[in-house]
Amino acid sequence: MEGYTPGEQPVAGDRIVKLNTNENPFPPSPKVLEAIRGISADALRRYPNPTADQFRLAASKVLGITTDMILAGNGSDDILTIATRTFVPPGGSIAFPEPTYSLYPVLSQLEEARSISVEWGKDFSLPIETLLATKANAIYLANPNAPTGTFVPPAKVAELAKAFTSVILVDEAYADFAEDNCLALVNDHPNVVISRTLSKAYSLAGLRFGYAVAQPQVISEMMKVKDSYNTDAVSIIAATAAIEDQQYATGIWERIRTERKRLTSELTRLGWSVLPSRANFVLATVPGGQGRQAYLGLKQHGILVRYFDKPGLTDKVRITVGTADENDALLNAIKSLFRSEKVA
Amino acid sequence: MEGYTPGEQPVAGDRIVKLNTNENPFPPSPKVLEAIRGISADALRRYPNPTADQFRLAASKVLGITTDMILAGNGSDDILTIATRTFVPPGGSIAFPEPTYSLYPVLSQLEEARSISVEWGKDFSLPIETLLATKANAIYLANPNAPTGTFVPPAKVAELAKAFTSVILVDEAYADFAEDNCLALVNDHPNVVISRTLSKAYSLAGLRFGYAVAQPQVISEMMKVKDSYNTDAVSIIAATAAIEDQQYATGIWERIRTERKRLTSELTRLGWSVLPSRANFVLATVPGGQGRQAYLGLKQHGILVRYFDKPGLTDKVRITVGTADENDALLNAIKSLFRSEKVA
Repeated sequence: MEGYTPGEQPVAGDRIVKLNTNENPFPPSPKVLEAIRGISADALRRYPNPTADQFRLAASKVLGITTDMILAGNGSDDILTIATRTFVPPGGSIAFPEPTYSLYPVLSQLEEARSISVEWGKDFSLPIETLLATKANAIYLANPNAPTGTFVPPAKVAELAKAFTSVILVDEAYADFAEDNCLALVNDHPNVVISRTLSKAYSLAGLRFGYAVAQPQVISEMMKVKDSYNTDAVSIIAATAAIEDQQYATGIWERIRTERKRLTSELTRLGWSVLPSRANFVLATVPGGQGRQAYLGLKQHGILVRYFDKPGLTDKVRITVGTADENDALLNAIKSLFRSEKVA
Repeated sequence: MEGYTPGEQPVAGDRIVKLNTNENPFPPSPKVLEAIRGISADALRRYPNPTADQFRLAASKVLGITTDMILAGNGSDDILTIATRTFVPPGGSIAFPEPTYSLYPVLSQLEEARSISVEWGKDFSLPIETLLATKANAIYLANPNAPTGTFVPPAKVAELAKAFTSVILVDEAYADFAEDNCLALVNDHPNVVISRTLSKAYSLAGLRFGYAVAQPQVISEMMKVKDSYNTDAVSIIAATAAIEDQQYATGIWERIRTERKRLTSELTRLGWSVLPSRANFVLATVPGGQGRQAYLGLKQHGILVRYFDKPGLTDKVRITVGTADENDALLNAIKSLFRSEKVA
């Protein structure tokens, strides 16, 4: 089998505008660095709290839920792995609308389960009937979705959750950049599990910290499957400091939304067609279907975007929303690359 | 199913002599703290190197092997989980001599595989024939073993590796405290996988960093199974700093060996029977079979040791080798607890 292929990472020191792996362009809260620098030798020497209770307490206050509804993990990849091992038996199946996060088929393969990919509805609406018809052991739904950036309203997810008997994992890696999310669904739906990460919204991709939210008895089942100490002492204090600093976090989310809007309208003005995104990236169709050429041309200009050599995506590139300067650099490179094809 | 139960962790601020979870009593190298405090906002914001190459390079120099023989993980629990998912199919089986690390049956259960526990040979020698007869998909061997501290000579492991067709995972969590190890076996035996951790030997239990050593094609299979980013930016630089500072590490290992020897002879003098240990703990039989009473009595004296309520272990406690002061506190508490039964 093939493992999951992460986006390319430039060598340290390269002068690159990196808009390919959806990292947050802003640094983490200064309080995170302060917390990390204050770590004691004793905290390193001793085993960490196995369930990251300090983080769960802080997150429970921010999210308005109880601590027993939260499971912490080593990035949301760990959360997704734990969920797969908890809810999907070997020989079982996972259903998801395609295109989506390309880790899902890898996870099901690792569990010796089948992937059942179904088509999105019109304009990337939730294909409720098709998903139900799969009778899968679990449905995985990235919301906002990657790489499209599109968003399914919580009411539609609730409709699916009501009709579906097994688990629906809503992967909210990008939810903090949207105006809405599915968190409240866990109250009424014991089969809804939310997965979140601090990688993007809290600028902590380097740290590996994610969490799941679900009803207590569901979290308790997932607890049995996780590695005993799946998060470490440093990431626990850093993630706690990050989620406690909501003022800083909401500030950068707002800046990213503003830039997302500007990037979308500028690209549209240049003749690119951009899907309405609720994430910190946009999926844009390159004029003339030249997805690959745009990716390679931008790379020569020192700008990395993500190109997917997959059916339905070859005319597109996925662009992470950067800082205003980074987005300007991208737009200028596009103008210079596609000068001959400029659209009024 | 039941998950793995980690040893108890006192609440921060408790004045406890903690000799129950085999943490290193000495702090990590000062260079580790320096490295952590030097972390940049950018290193946190960006995804880490997916394969921890900086650590692999440093470790390859220390171990005298190539980097493609090393896989880094989020603690050796992650390494053991990856190994299980790589080598043991659902419905398969894992064999191990009992008693041993109680995580192994949990791992096999999570993989929907069977655990086949076999008896140790006389004086905890390797039961080669019995292990071979299991025809298991993998053999897991903790060496030094927990909770016994006993050690199987590499030549015996080589004998097993030669006769066995599937993988032998040698869990060397405690090997740095022994005088020998099985690392060199990977050169001649493609079916030998070594698992190591920085938790104990490098005083970094809080950090979660482990690694596997095996032939390149084996490591490459394990790479496909691991989470994309299973180690984080902070732990990578900290683990690198730790393994590079061999002078510091070997110094504390020597101090622990000296204390292990003293603790063993003092306990023996008090009438306790102690298995010869190559790890940073000893398994000691309490006079009169009072394992549980010793555990509870010591706890009342503010000293935590590990008691296993399992067949063959109820008359024993496992004691982590502490600093000279901690070991003195333990010995004094034992003297006061068992005054009436003191042995000349």
